[in-house]
Amino acid sequence: MTPESIPGGVCAPAGFVAAGVTCGIKKSGAPDLALLACDKSVPTAAIFTTNKAVAAPVIVSREHLAATRGRSRAVVVNSGCANACTGSQGLEVARLMAAETARALGCEAEDVLVGSTGVIGVSLNPQVVAGGIIAAAAVLAADGGPRAARAIMTTDPAPKEHAVRATSEGQVFHVGGMAKGAGMIEPNMATMLGFLTTDAIVEPALLHRALVDVAAETFNAITVDGECSTNDCLVLMASGASGVTIDEHSYPDFTAALYAVAHPLAVDIVRRGEGATKLITVRVTGATSEADARQAARAIANSLLVKTAVHGGDPNWGRLVAVAGRAGVAFQLAAARVAIGPIVLFADGRPFDERAGEAATYLTRADVELSVDLGTRGRHTAVMYTCDLSAEYVKINAEYRT
Amino acid sequence: MTPESIPGGVCAPAGFVAAGVTCGIKKSGAPDLALLACDKSVPTAAIFTTNKAVAAPVIVSREHLAATRGRSRAVVVNSGCANACTGSQGLEVARLMAAETARALGCEAEDVLVGSTGVIGVSLNPQVVAGGIIAAAAVLAADGGPRAARAIMTTDPAPKEHAVRATSEGQVFHVGGMAKGAGMIEPNMATMLGFLTTDAIVEPALLHRALVDVAAETFNAITVDGECSTNDCLVLMASGASGVTIDEHSYPDFTAALYAVAHPLAVDIVRRGEGATKLITVRVTGATSEADARQAARAIANSLLVKTAVHGGDPNWGRLVAVAGRAGVAFQLAAARVAIGPIVLFADGRPFDERAGEAATYLTRADVELSVDLGTRGRHTAVMYTCDLSAEYVKINAEYRT
Repeated sequence: MTPESIPGGVCAPAGFVAAGVTCGIKKSGAPDLALLACDKSVPTAAIFTTNKAVAAPVIVSREHLAATRGRSRAVVVNSGCANACTGSQGLEVARLMAAETARALGCEAEDVLVGSTGVIGVSLNPQVVAGGIIAAAAVLAADGGPRAARAIMTTDPAPKEHAVRATSEGQVFHVGGMAKGAGMIEPNMATMLGFLTTDAIVEPALLHRALVDVAAETFNAITVDGECSTNDCLVLMASGASGVTIDEHSYPDFTAALYAVAHPLAVDIVRRGEGATKLITVRVTGATSEADARQAARAIANSLLVKTAVHGGDPNWGRLVAVAGRAGVAFQLAAARVAIGPIVLFADGRPFDERAGEAATYLTRADVELSVDLGTRGRHTAVMYTCDLSAEYVKINAEYRT
Repeated sequence: MTPESIPGGVCAPAGFVAAGVTCGIKKSGAPDLALLACDKSVPTAAIFTTNKAVAAPVIVSREHLAATRGRSRAVVVNSGCANACTGSQGLEVARLMAAETARALGCEAEDVLVGSTGVIGVSLNPQVVAGGIIAAAAVLAADGGPRAARAIMTTDPAPKEHAVRATSEGQVFHVGGMAKGAGMIEPNMATMLGFLTTDAIVEPALLHRALVDVAAETFNAITVDGECSTNDCLVLMASGASGVTIDEHSYPDFTAALYAVAHPLAVDIVRRGEGATKLITVRVTGATSEADARQAARAIANSLLVKTAVHGGDPNWGRLVAVAGRAGVAFQLAAARVAIGPIVLFADGRPFDERAGEAATYLTRADVELSVDLGTRGRHTAVMYTCDLSAEYVKINAEYRT
């Protein structure tokens, strides 16, 4: 059975409470501190940024998850300040955030993960954030999901949350999630945060595998401008409150439910990317390896020439061929194939320019698909989601911060 | 002695003649066919695109240079049509261009290299280009360099040529060159062509080594948008007419002269890049290897966030740190150092935001330098040249071709 959408966000699965409050990190007075907590320490998986200029909260969260061997009780997140490039003082504040949260909940600091998002290189005031944690802990509630989703926003145009009711062999469990990112109109943002919850019973190793598998096709398959931030993190907590156990047998049901929450959140990040007017799905086929397929899809999804062509409604298949050719993957021009939507524009080594008008009409849609077969007769495929590149993106990112 | 600039372009070195004519490939009536020839077959080195969607003229030139073991008599180049993605018919036309040139000069087809630049996926009319070759061969002249430089332009705002008089142990030799590219206002262009000449005596293996060495710091150290075209090629011919022999001992004098021609041509491609308003020199130091240094410099030079920040005059050092961190190279945040011009904005793990105003003033210049030390205490360095990213770039590349 297809997972069914339900309200509630991260609190839709049983066993979770959340809160979102204003503590004064953002000058605007918008909510800037979120707390997500379980009633006990539960299996938790996480994927962190691969950026070597790693932010303090990522360092602390990694340490804590290693110490607990994949368990946690709560996640504390502030927006408005990334606490990145802030040296030893920043690390102290991140540790303080975990300690204050642990004190409020009555657990160990190591049971708490920390997330931050906002401007790089600015210090986070420890008094301000500690006050926020105390206030948030006091209002933790099972209907707090939407407030938490709002409190992790920076300049996202709207909160991003989603949840589903799913079944495995007739037994009901839930998955919920919230995310923020890439709508970073204020420059210098440290960007993508995602928090997923479930009430299924999943042991830490399987939970981690599920998160990595699903992230590969969702949060790790999106790009707005090819940048990877200092703060990116994706967390999945499993309360077990549904009583439904996930094992090898029911694993596909679980990842399907996880995908049903992660996919719309990830795609929404791209759709609301800076200056974006179109969602572009890039589909690569005919690759000799999974890695080649992903590399080609990523090169196309990050190509300025492809993104500007889609922005302008130009069915410029030559750019797709040229990017596939320079992507560093096995590629056979004579057998390659390029389509814009259902319209094939290059195949068998020759163009079909008479279809350009039809393709231009197709490109006026808000959601478009670009398909490239690498012509190697390989069976591997990959999908990436990106957005078009507009003059608005340049404007947003060229404006002087102060 | 520093090489001294002289006029004449590719014909400044003795032994070369050139021509540029209009044959009707471009609808505008602008010159569209160039011929560069020597009075005999001479040592020739070339570097071609690494794009796997390789254009017909590149395939033919590679074959010819392999057959002659690094010698050629002439190069024939058309603009207005890239002859790329044109299948077996395109290959036939490229071969015809070499054969027609050989017939006009009285040599073998294998002694002729072929270059094309312009729109991808459009067929080149064999009659039209053959007519142009006959016309060009009839007007080959020692003062034809500037006309050839003009005939290889597509939408470059001005011809790009340069030449120098150099000495090695008191003996005089010359290096000349012309280039086009990256000023590709018409989308879908197959881009960069460079042709260098010298009257020094250099055997093919040493000539190739010199071209690769100098290209690494000039034509291979530039980027406008990270794209590598289907037609890129760089050719160096050595007529020997000066009587000055280059050997291991005089090699540094020769590469210095080559650099003195190649560097301004390469930088000019960036400076006149699409929508560019600033030339950006990216300098990476403190890398553990040459490859790391180049990779980090390339990542910074291609970063949309860096390029838009410079465009907007925003001294956004956080973006430089974040890109260096995600570049896939050894990086130590605590020892890293970021400077905009002479102004250090991040060092010893902490920002110097009080210098932001000074850095913003510096960024109002037309030529700016960004320096990042990767903090690994390694001794390797790299320099890349790029331009800022403007809304004009998006406008240029988003406009529908037809």
